[in-house]
Amino acid sequence: MIQDDKNDKQISQAVIRRLPRYYRYLRELIRNNILRISSRELSEKMKVTASQIRQDLNCFGGFGQQGYGYNVKYLYNEISRILGVDKHFTAVIIGMGNLGKALARNPLFEKRGVSIKGLFDISPDIIGKPCNGIPVMSMNLVTEFCVINSIDIAVLTLPKSEAASAAETLAKAGIKGFWNFSNMELSLSEYDVKIENIHLGDTLMTLCYELARDLDEKE
Amino acid sequence: MIQDDKNDKQISQAVIRRLPRYYRYLRELIRNNILRISSRELSEKMKVTASQIRQDLNCFGGFGQQGYGYNVKYLYNEISRILGVDKHFTAVIIGMGNLGKALARNPLFEKRGVSIKGLFDISPDIIGKPCNGIPVMSMNLVTEFCVINSIDIAVLTLPKSEAASAAETLAKAGIKGFWNFSNMELSLSEYDVKIENIHLGDTLMTLCYELARDLDEKE
Repeated sequence: MIQDDKNDKQISQAVIRRLPRYYRYLRELIRNNILRISSRELSEKMKVTASQIRQDLNCFGGFGQQGYGYNVKYLYNEISRILGVDKHFTAVIIGMGNLGKALARNPLFEKRGVSIKGLFDISPDIIGKPCNGIPVMSMNLVTEFCVINSIDIAVLTLPKSEAASAAETLAKAGIKGFWNFSNMELSLSEYDVKIENIHLGDTLMTLCYELARDLDEKE
Repeated sequence: MIQDDKNDKQISQAVIRRLPRYYRYLRELIRNNILRISSRELSEKMKVTASQIRQDLNCFGGFGQQGYGYNVKYLYNEISRILGVDKHFTAVIIGMGNLGKALARNPLFEKRGVSIKGLFDISPDIIGKPCNGIPVMSMNLVTEFCVINSIDIAVLTLPKSEAASAAETLAKAGIKGFWNFSNMELSLSEYDVKIENIHLGDTLMTLCYELARDLDEKE
């Protein structure tokens, strides 16, 4: 079943947010040579109701067949395509502190079809030293580098105080997507860019909420 | 206005997920000595509709007054209380690779009332060396340490292959909450624990989806 872009556009934001999770599960199934799966089995694995799964997967033509289940490889390829894995986006990491280093060494980019092409920092102590085989470059070179290499994504792991001006430089250098760990919500409304602001602490607070509620119940 | 626990329980999961964001914004307002704010102003800052804000804040008694707006300090304190900031939870970090180090040095815990009490790893190269002033301990000591110090939360930044068994050890040692960066969804259904599984890559994929959709539109 082939889908056109028009159908993609109708997929709701909530479903889109769930797709990466399907992507991970289907990837694991393929790794374990499981080629088809029922919505019931997938639902038990993912701890989502079977009807939610059927509803979600129907959004992009992933109709299961009664008594056969879903074709894992087909679903995986469809979700990969929708999520842009086949676009082979390129990225740079800005800020090579601990988080920058952790991300540079993390296979998560490669698994999602994103290649890290450059690492940047302002500290002379770090510039020139390699991280995961890639030498860290000076921020003075970032515009030229991004323009020449048509970089798509900037991963921002630099301090809050430097994030806004760096982001503007990068947007001017043609960066289209920001994966922003700088703990401030970027707003680049003058530019045609997409931003994912990551606030690690928010999920810690949700966990604390659950623990606090449990304590209150026991009191 | 004082709320009892019964009211807290009625707050929907969706609102709870938004509370940390309110917490961050209100904190910033206090830092800037802004003591009251209208839902319209807060809505512009947070890029959420004013009616959404009114609805959310009404859930926990944060009624604004016509012509006065919200009392920032009161709201901040209420949200802090609901999120358990006043419980002063304690935590250990398990796995002192780059991400573990980045988290150990990050002020995010302190800002949310969580104290890092111990750091653990299995590598002899790391054990005994301090990180952010705290010496890294051997995993052999983790059970004793968590029991003696009544640790609430374990931050898991260790590899996927070691996460499940470490988590079980920690649950037996009385850990009640897991902030899990190990890239596998923990299931500890036999234990009375709360788990936040963090999949950093999922938000990267959402960003890639947005970029891919833009490309498709331009084609």
